[in-house]
Amino acid sequence: MKFNSIGIIHSPYVESGPRQSYPNAEGDFRIVIDPVYEKGLFRLEDYTHIYVIYWLDRITGPLKWIITPHHNHNHQIGLFASRTPLRPNPIGLALVELREVEGNILHISGIDALDGTPVLDIKPYHEGLDSTPLQPYYPKGDT
Amino acid sequence: MKFNSIGIIHSPYVESGPRQSYPNAEGDFRIVIDPVYEKGLFRLEDYTHIYVIYWLDRITGPLKWIITPHHNHNHQIGLFASRTPLRPNPIGLALVELREVEGNILHISGIDALDGTPVLDIKPYHEGLDSTPLQPYYPKGDT
Repeated sequence: MKFNSIGIIHSPYVESGPRQSYPNAEGDFRIVIDPVYEKGLFRLEDYTHIYVIYWLDRITGPLKWIITPHHNHNHQIGLFASRTPLRPNPIGLALVELREVEGNILHISGIDALDGTPVLDIKPYHEGLDSTPLQPYYPKGDT
Repeated sequence: MKFNSIGIIHSPYVESGPRQSYPNAEGDFRIVIDPVYEKGLFRLEDYTHIYVIYWLDRITGPLKWIITPHHNHNHQIGLFASRTPLRPNPIGLALVELREVEGNILHISGIDALDGTPVLDIKPYHEGLDSTPLQPYYPKGDT
């Protein structure tokens, strides 16, 4: 299956980024949507948060099927039980705050994407669809 | 950019599906991961919820840049302010309950995907990363 970029993420991260998208990260984070798609942004500003689905275009290296997460070195998990960017399909997912929409430019909170990262999709975040009160921050087996 | 299927979603929906992924939908919902990737599922069962990123492979038709959501016919929104499956890149995103992992088979709660839908990625859901208490179910302008 083939997908095309609908826009570009601009971030302060040129060579390496943080491990996660931090809402309070300092710097200028913007998504510039290709003007061809600008009409699809109508009333996106009604939302406080959006999902950004992006192509991890500069992540290279062999896949590691078992990961040791940095927050717990005694714990091993599979690739799909982790958020490592080294994945069979290098697709990133971030939930970010949408601060302002200015034409085809989305001003957002911190995202763990390198400057120039291509965007695949933008979706509005709905609490009723996209969150659950049942899930702790760390997985249930991780004590 | 080119991506490959890592598995297949099995659902009761053959010709058409619901508008959303309903956690209490009746029927058998499973993801069968290609055995090549099974080792990446290690300890995924520690999570109660996962994101499924999938290819909306049977969605066809011209893109509509302005959508009238079914829950509010007086409201118009842009394509990216909606969760319509007709998108420039037909990528679906669902947050589902992970009920059981049986080898390479993930038993999940209801997902709005047709039977046979190819999967692109599975990511664990972390409340701290992936939810926000600030967002109401309906967008802020929608009264």
